[in-house]
Amino acid sequence: MSQNAKYNAGILVIGNEILSGRTKDTNTSTLATWLNSIGVNVAEARVIPDDEDIIIDTLNILRKKYNYVFTTGGIGPTHDDITAKSVSKAFDLKYEIHQEAFKILESYYKIGEFNEGRQKMVWMPRNANLILNPTSGAPGFSVENVYCLPGVPSILKSMLGGLKNSIVGGKPILSHTISLRTVESEIANSLTKVQDKYQDVEIGSYPFFQAGKLGVSIVIRSDNQLKIDECNSQILKFVEEKKIKIVDR
Amino acid sequence: MSQNAKYNAGILVIGNEILSGRTKDTNTSTLATWLNSIGVNVAEARVIPDDEDIIIDTLNILRKKYNYVFTTGGIGPTHDDITAKSVSKAFDLKYEIHQEAFKILESYYKIGEFNEGRQKMVWMPRNANLILNPTSGAPGFSVENVYCLPGVPSILKSMLGGLKNSIVGGKPILSHTISLRTVESEIANSLTKVQDKYQDVEIGSYPFFQAGKLGVSIVIRSDNQLKIDECNSQILKFVEEKKIKIVDR
Repeated sequence: MSQNAKYNAGILVIGNEILSGRTKDTNTSTLATWLNSIGVNVAEARVIPDDEDIIIDTLNILRKKYNYVFTTGGIGPTHDDITAKSVSKAFDLKYEIHQEAFKILESYYKIGEFNEGRQKMVWMPRNANLILNPTSGAPGFSVENVYCLPGVPSILKSMLGGLKNSIVGGKPILSHTISLRTVESEIANSLTKVQDKYQDVEIGSYPFFQAGKLGVSIVIRSDNQLKIDECNSQILKFVEEKKIKIVDR
Repeated sequence: MSQNAKYNAGILVIGNEILSGRTKDTNTSTLATWLNSIGVNVAEARVIPDDEDIIIDTLNILRKKYNYVFTTGGIGPTHDDITAKSVSKAFDLKYEIHQEAFKILESYYKIGEFNEGRQKMVWMPRNANLILNPTSGAPGFSVENVYCLPGVPSILKSMLGGLKNSIVGGKPILSHTISLRTVESEIANSLTKVQDKYQDVEIGSYPFFQAGKLGVSIVIRSDNQLKIDECNSQILKFVEEKKIKIVDR
């Protein structure tokens, strides 16, 4: 079961815009998909407001609980971007100009454009490691096991490649999906039997509506392809017996 | 500032499918938008796996911390639907057949279709209050300040209307958005001055890419329309001085 994966992570989404409902968070999904592919299980995600005390407290809980913590949001130039300062306080590190980040942004912008607002983005916890940003210049950073990324989804995505060598994971978490034209109650008992037999495989059941029709997707997850295949066979067996139509497999 | 709103809530998203990255959570946004409209501020959202101990522990933290807790997910008929049982344990209540829910589903389904799988959905904490489901029959439920809703977004949405009378909120949290053709660093200092002047108004700044062009949305939030209007005027003033194009207001 992926919950027992050797390496785990917590995701900390920082931003009032998620808690107000204005913005739907997609960074958790992006990070989780990427982390699973390098063998890191996401144990928990939290969304918290742009509030220094709450950021510090939550970060200090999560960074002790998980191998890795990824924060998103709050590293831009405006007054509501307080992640770097809060991380400094959480680690009791000086919040100061990061010389390397300064040089990167100084050469990224045209002469005269590296203004006061932009210079705020090079203030970081002392000795932070930079996470390069191939999209818009301003780097993210990491301190110990905490990795701070921006909130804009396309920029965050573009920075993951540069992180790959810093994150040690286990075997990739694999998954297989079988989509059926049925309802959950039709397959619940049979599915439970398969799950009981393979306790270390994670089997999920998710109803969907597609093109006006009801269906159920069964998702099998494990770092062991052989076990996924075995579960898959046993599920397909009861699906056939029940004469349920397979939509996708 | 909406973080200081009189009534607050925590959202607890229960489901491996969010933590694996397979599914993007949209229920937090739906719930938050609705809660804001009835004067309840969302202080925090957490995503946790389908794990009984974790559900119990997290629920017991959140229900003591906030006026309301809303859970989504895990109330269907399959083996990974363990919310009702976990809530029973968190409140130390018997997990049993809810007679009213039984009657609702018995008459909802055709004769012979209210099978064992579906009957699982009427097992709830003793004396739970039902939350009616106009879409697919199976009700949600509440115990004290904890409201348990399904994970399927369209079904969850359809159940909020029936909840309105149970939730006591304050003044609706209002918001106004100004979208500008600029970058955050151009307006950061001026915006900070407005925020410093109106500490009880929440002003957020969010970069966006639209039709290949960069922009920034400024979001002003408060339960006081007058204060929103004042902030709006002061922002429009510096926007005009800086000759920044307004995309939308």
